[in-house]
Amino acid sequence: MSGFEDLGFCKLDVDRYERTGHPEIVFGLGKTADHVEAIFSRLVEVHGRALVTRATAEMAERVLPKFPGAKFDEVSRLISFGESARRLPGKVAVLTGGTSDIPVAEEAAGTAEWMGCEVDRIYDVGVAGIDRLLSHKDRIREASVVIGVAGMEGALVSVVGGLVRRPVIAVPTSIGYGANLQGLTTLLAMMTSCASGVTVVNIDNGFGAGFQAAMILQLVAEGV
Amino acid sequence: MSGFEDLGFCKLDVDRYERTGHPEIVFGLGKTADHVEAIFSRLVEVHGRALVTRATAEMAERVLPKFPGAKFDEVSRLISFGESARRLPGKVAVLTGGTSDIPVAEEAAGTAEWMGCEVDRIYDVGVAGIDRLLSHKDRIREASVVIGVAGMEGALVSVVGGLVRRPVIAVPTSIGYGANLQGLTTLLAMMTSCASGVTVVNIDNGFGAGFQAAMILQLVAEGV
Amino acid sequence: MSGFEDLGFCKLDVDRYERTGHPEIVFGLGKTADHVEAIFSRLVEVHGRALVTRATAEMAERVLPKFPGAKFDEVSRLISFGESARRLPGKVAVLTGGTSDIPVAEEAAGTAEWMGCEVDRIYDVGVAGIDRLLSHKDRIREASVVIGVAGMEGALVSVVGGLVRRPVIAVPTSIGYGANLQGLTTLLAMMTSCASGVTVVNIDNGFGAGFQAAMILQLVAEGV
Amino acid sequence: MSGFEDLGFCKLDVDRYERTGHPEIVFGLGKTADHVEAIFSRLVEVHGRALVTRATAEMAERVLPKFPGAKFDEVSRLISFGESARRLPGKVAVLTGGTSDIPVAEEAAGTAEWMGCEVDRIYDVGVAGIDRLLSHKDRIREASVVIGVAGMEGALVSVVGGLVRRPVIAVPTSIGYGANLQGLTTLLAMMTSCASGVTVVNIDNGFGAGFQAAMILQLVAEGV
Amino acid sequence: MSGFEDLGFCKLDVDRYERTGHPEIVFGLGKTADHVEAIFSRLVEVHGRALVTRATAEMAERVLPKFPGAKFDEVSRLISFGESARRLPGKVAVLTGGTSDIPVAEEAAGTAEWMGCEVDRIYDVGVAGIDRLLSHKDRIREASVVIGVAGMEGALVSVVGGLVRRPVIAVPTSIGYGANLQGLTTLLAMMTSCASGVTVVNIDNGFGAGFQAAMILQLVAEGV
Amino acid sequence: MSGFEDLGFCKLDVDRYERTGHPEIVFGLGKTADHVEAIFSRLVEVHGRALVTRATAEMAERVLPKFPGAKFDEVSRLISFGESARRLPGKVAVLTGGTSDIPVAEEAAGTAEWMGCEVDRIYDVGVAGIDRLLSHKDRIREASVVIGVAGMEGALVSVVGGLVRRPVIAVPTSIGYGANLQGLTTLLAMMTSCASGVTVVNIDNGFGAGFQAAMILQLVAEGV
Amino acid sequence: MSGFEDLGFCKLDVDRYERTGHPEIVFGLGKTADHVEAIFSRLVEVHGRALVTRATAEMAERVLPKFPGAKFDEVSRLISFGESARRLPGKVAVLTGGTSDIPVAEEAAGTAEWMGCEVDRIYDVGVAGIDRLLSHKDRIREASVVIGVAGMEGALVSVVGGLVRRPVIAVPTSIGYGANLQGLTTLLAMMTSCASGVTVVNIDNGFGAGFQAAMILQLVAEGV
Amino acid sequence: MSGFEDLGFCKLDVDRYERTGHPEIVFGLGKTADHVEAIFSRLVEVHGRALVTRATAEMAERVLPKFPGAKFDEVSRLISFGESARRLPGKVAVLTGGTSDIPVAEEAAGTAEWMGCEVDRIYDVGVAGIDRLLSHKDRIREASVVIGVAGMEGALVSVVGGLVRRPVIAVPTSIGYGANLQGLTTLLAMMTSCASGVTVVNIDNGFGAGFQAAMILQLVAEGV
Repeated sequence: MSGFEDLGFCKLDVDRYERTGHPEIVFGLGKTADHVEAIFSRLVEVHGRALVTRATAEMAERVLPKFPGAKFDEVSRLISFGESARRLPGKVAVLTGGTSDIPVAEEAAGTAEWMGCEVDRIYDVGVAGIDRLLSHKDRIREASVVIGVAGMEGALVSVVGGLVRRPVIAVPTSIGYGANLQGLTTLLAMMTSCASGVTVVNIDNGFGAGFQAAMILQLVAEGV
Repeated sequence: MSGFEDLGFCKLDVDRYERTGHPEIVFGLGKTADHVEAIFSRLVEVHGRALVTRATAEMAERVLPKFPGAKFDEVSRLISFGESARRLPGKVAVLTGGTSDIPVAEEAAGTAEWMGCEVDRIYDVGVAGIDRLLSHKDRIREASVVIGVAGMEGALVSVVGGLVRRPVIAVPTSIGYGANLQGLTTLLAMMTSCASGVTVVNIDNGFGAGFQAAMILQLVAEGV
Repeated sequence: MSGFEDLGFCKLDVDRYERTGHPEIVFGLGKTADHVEAIFSRLVEVHGRALVTRATAEMAERVLPKFPGAKFDEVSRLISFGESARRLPGKVAVLTGGTSDIPVAEEAAGTAEWMGCEVDRIYDVGVAGIDRLLSHKDRIREASVVIGVAGMEGALVSVVGGLVRRPVIAVPTSIGYGANLQGLTTLLAMMTSCASGVTVVNIDNGFGAGFQAAMILQLVAEGV
Repeated sequence: MSGFEDLGFCKLDVDRYERTGHPEIVFGLGKTADHVEAIFSRLVEVHGRALVTRATAEMAERVLPKFPGAKFDEVSRLISFGESARRLPGKVAVLTGGTSDIPVAEEAAGTAEWMGCEVDRIYDVGVAGIDRLLSHKDRIREASVVIGVAGMEGALVSVVGGLVRRPVIAVPTSIGYGANLQGLTTLLAMMTSCASGVTVVNIDNGFGAGFQAAMILQLVAEGV
Repeated sequence: MSGFEDLGFCKLDVDRYERTGHPEIVFGLGKTADHVEAIFSRLVEVHGRALVTRATAEMAERVLPKFPGAKFDEVSRLISFGESARRLPGKVAVLTGGTSDIPVAEEAAGTAEWMGCEVDRIYDVGVAGIDRLLSHKDRIREASVVIGVAGMEGALVSVVGGLVRRPVIAVPTSIGYGANLQGLTTLLAMMTSCASGVTVVNIDNGFGAGFQAAMILQLVAEGV
Repeated sequence: MSGFEDLGFCKLDVDRYERTGHPEIVFGLGKTADHVEAIFSRLVEVHGRALVTRATAEMAERVLPKFPGAKFDEVSRLISFGESARRLPGKVAVLTGGTSDIPVAEEAAGTAEWMGCEVDRIYDVGVAGIDRLLSHKDRIREASVVIGVAGMEGALVSVVGGLVRRPVIAVPTSIGYGANLQGLTTLLAMMTSCASGVTVVNIDNGFGAGFQAAMILQLVAEGV
Repeated sequence: MSGFEDLGFCKLDVDRYERTGHPEIVFGLGKTADHVEAIFSRLVEVHGRALVTRATAEMAERVLPKFPGAKFDEVSRLISFGESARRLPGKVAVLTGGTSDIPVAEEAAGTAEWMGCEVDRIYDVGVAGIDRLLSHKDRIREASVVIGVAGMEGALVSVVGGLVRRPVIAVPTSIGYGANLQGLTTLLAMMTSCASGVTVVNIDNGFGAGFQAAMILQLVAEGV
Repeated sequence: MSGFEDLGFCKLDVDRYERTGHPEIVFGLGKTADHVEAIFSRLVEVHGRALVTRATAEMAERVLPKFPGAKFDEVSRLISFGESARRLPGKVAVLTGGTSDIPVAEEAAGTAEWMGCEVDRIYDVGVAGIDRLLSHKDRIREASVVIGVAGMEGALVSVVGGLVRRPVIAVPTSIGYGANLQGLTTLLAMMTSCASGVTVVNIDNGFGAGFQAAMILQLVAEGV
């Protein structure tokens, strides 16, 4: 099991930096604060930096005192420490349909930033007032990758997909009620979108979108 | 059972004109050509006009020879005969996202026309090329009622809902594949739309949208 | 972004009155009390009136002291301030199947009233005791628009749809259990209703129905 | 395995008459014509009568020539031979919402008749024209058991359930499209009906409803 | 609205006894304690007895002190007062698959008893230990109506349906986890059961089964 | 890629015999007759025997003439050639609920036999006539592994699971209609079964059950 | 009801040891602490040992003081007392995809151990770092039965299924969010797995997998 | 509507090349051969090249004779004419789990090639024989973008996602049966995959994946 370290309760993928260009990122949901603390500590020892997603306040209370400089952002629920030595080229635009989508958007933005990306946040530009979106058309077109975070019918990404010459990553959010089915409707709607060049990640998975954006810019940085 | 006529296999609602302002309209799906012919004939006797939705070629072959002037439109699948004596005020705009939505849109348009509405068709204005829609903004705003017919994620109606001061009726279509779930995704997405003032009818139910539009204009015509 | 005002966390659609005849209405669900207070204040400055749907007691405690005359209705969960200068013609009948549907019905009624409509409430007329509904037939027929709020199988709107010559807007509610699937069954049942002229809004979306009713009466008021 | 007879491909329940008061009834769907013929023949030998549901024309061609007096009804898809020696008391009212529900209603009616019931057919009394139903109120109330066969939102049984002092059995049909989901919406809607005293059978299962009605009248006949 | 009494928040169906043989029964879920108290009081005035299903402890605290003799059963969640003057003939067997199904079974049993039925409780006879069920075969066969209450795959009613010559009413319960889908799997499984003569009510709807059983025995009592 | 052979359109797993004790078995569904013929030929060359599941008549016409002794069974849709040199100990009982489940049961039986198992077929023992099943109790208990093939609510395996001291593998079939949802209801019902010691394979996946049974008996043969 | 003991609220299957080789195991979910205590006590009297799954701390507080030596494991939620007199041959490997799957894995392991199996725990070997799994290939292949516990897409069992010559039992867990649908996606994905020889139990049903593994090893122990 | 050309039945997006770097690509599904021919002809006039996805043989018969050099590929169902003047840097690896996934993979590959990408096809490397995949590890890692096309549980992309430092795009296919739910299970499983850096497109949407891959390489070509 070269490349993995057995912490007893888990097998830490210390080799991931080598394979993928980034250390393993800790998915906090369903883990105990004990486990997160142990993994975090070991990652900092090995890589000098670490990131926890879906972190809780309890996890933050355990990790922050031990690592001066570590930060917990309550909106994005990210605990981060250190940063990528390498700045990736280009810019990631993160758009939201409404204000309720901001926590998920911040998870995407925070993940991409920690991985070395520059992020441009363009929030509350849902299509019900289409001029809000169109007035930012040039700014959106300047981005190298666009992340569209939206709930309800997810129409934002369909419109954006038709405006840009860059990859668009859609993040459905669980904002909505009734027919929204906790974001499942948004996910399926984004899947069946009439715009080309749009790919989709799981409901509320800001992390996945930010990660994929960084992978794309890493490709640009490293060349083909 | 005053107001109903027993044709044996069905109870014809001959009083509906009195109650709702329009003769009963025949839903062809699942009926035999025999039944449609019998109902059609009786409706023409009573009201001087009739309309069949979801008609088949076989039904048309039975009805058209008997009623010179009756028409069968293959796209909308409507058999119509006669027209409303009364022309309703205003105009109904019927929009589609793509060319595949046209049959459903024509069912809406044909129904509204038969009921006395003027219809303005604005087809293939889906949001992936948002300029197509925006270039018709003024024309859409002139309509008294807007019907938005779209498949996939149904984003068209979300954008239109934010542009107009008039009621918008959304018709999800079963165009699409995979995550579209035969139009169910579109239906749910339109339901959870971020635009106010949008109501929705069943998948592919152009008839229902045209009918509701005519009801609204009938209200305008008759006053409150 | 003419017509939009950037409040930092959101882009306020101050131009909506111009476009649609009504100020932007605030959807409280998922917003912080801070955000609601800020948006509410700015809307009152611009338009002299404001409405919040799905408001919480916490939001009310923030907004009411600042705006004497503002009201919070616990049943409908609406915070309202000011009213439409213009009274719309006609009358909106709001029906419910049972007593549990009243909160959603009140959201519909309160929204329509705030937008200038006269509302006639006819509650607890579900079809299991059909005489209750039929005894109000004339009163229902006098309305210009009918809103039917019902849970369970939603049969109320199917019966009403066949009684009137006016548009009917159906609001499925999440009342019920088991096979009701939190209102999804009601929504789909209303969609597939055997009555013509019925359109549907999202589960528990009283606001959407009230808004659409006001749009129809605004059309009557402004003419085609 | 007393009470069962091994035909090789199946184990015939020849003892069912003893246990339940009726011979085993053959469910034709998915069986070969060979199998149906063999089972039918053996049932006639043992009981002097037999019934096949969901029969095909091919099955009829095999069975009818062998058993003079056997009948195949194309609407209900029943092959029947002989009849119950015993006439059950009371009357079963079979109602349908529309004309498309008739085949399922006929399966219910034919099954009940073969089992010894008197049946009163009241078809096309859907609630969109509520007077059709109400004009038959007395006739419906005279029945000992009421079977309501309806598609779409199934509202018929909710109204009927509130009118009678007798058990109501609901049969959802797969008539409809889009949000109807091949009858699943109707099934769930009938389940969540606001009327008490209504029980439900599977989609299009006219047989099950007719059988249950006969079981109820058998109870009346035999006493408690 | 003859037969209905307007209590302001609801329209009480005081005529239901006349129509159906039983006073209106109050469905407590989603009602306030105030409403339940008011309805309960009026029903007792009119009919001398009343029944509330899905009652809460709070409702009981309001109703019991006012009506000496009223009872609240915590298992079945029924508040009952008075009883049917008429004892219905025969016996209702109420079976459960497991011990967790008992609350729903008690709702069925309590409802049937309040309506005048004699009830025989046969609990914890699920099919995984088939001898438990078979050892009660004679007792089950003596019943006039059988109610089968079961969760999980609901196999109990399939086996029972094949054993008796009497109507079987199945009540799916929400007991189970994972693939059980809160009882939806059980409901659908019971619907598609291989046994004839079984009808089904909503998930956890013990009331509905008890009510239907009483309707059947009322038919026996009153004759056809 | 040691252990795999590149046939151009596929990578044949020639090493599977080594790894799992059995040659790769060809899943015919969705493959062309060309592909099946090529794979079949190569498997026979390497292992001296081959098995195709979900085979079509067209595939059989291609394969049988080339390999005298190869057989195509129309019921199970298996093309088989050669047999396991090793006879596995014990016996696999294959049960079905009804006659319509036989094709899936034959796929299970044929697969197990080709892999060296002895099979005991016990068909049409569904629980609606529970004596049929119970009369074979001893024969079922003699089996080393029991495969229960059933449609509808799948109750057969729940009863069997409680009768035996051996592993039970459940195969849901797509037999049924309406609420059966093409076997999905059966699958979920079997999952949530009240019997312990039951595991489940995909809908109509007789092959998977037969394969697992053979794996269990291979373990017995080879020892732990 | 020979073999069953009536405890009033339940019918204890004291004969199960005889029939299946193991005493009845108590499913704690939905039972009261009273009931669990009573059943536990009686099982210990009859068999000298007992096991409760899905136990709560409250149940443990009731049972442990009475039975010195009884243990409550908080991770697996098992209360166990005594052990199988017989040690089963071979070894059960229990694998998990991640650390969050451990509680379910421990339920499987604890059940199998209580039934006499030796268990080898191999945790956190999900396929996103495939080397973790492959580095344990030999250890996995040594097992007589493999239990794969995984959430999300459940890919672990597909890979394992292709590596071993032994039966694989898959346990989907409810770990995940959004498109995971509380484990339903994992369950269906495991069902449709591309690996042969894999059977599946209900979501989070570690008990079922452990039980089936023990049944397989019991077969080995007892011979065919 | 600058940038759009009105062909009567559709509004051609002739400006798309300008906006996105590629001409509009024609989605053939649901279009008539007439429409496809007209759009194709106009696209060739404007851009000198054109691509139709989901093309039928009938469309090919109309288009190919008119445009010598145009090709119809029956596997991918693409009609293509001309090619991108610009060759994009890097390489797109297209992987499939099985041979049945090849048509979808070819749609992805053909689209990417037409847009100027170099494609490396690595087919039939599903995880049930993990060595097939691992033996191509280096080749996969050389790609700039990886497209994983798989049916069933979609495990391929989870494994690949953990192996590479490049963006992975997953395409679920509708290959499978039963619990596969026509690819919906695969789609949801890929969404909830345990691997980071994976995004997903609609079921069978090879085009979308190829397009997104080309957008990424276009970014590399044009620089940020």
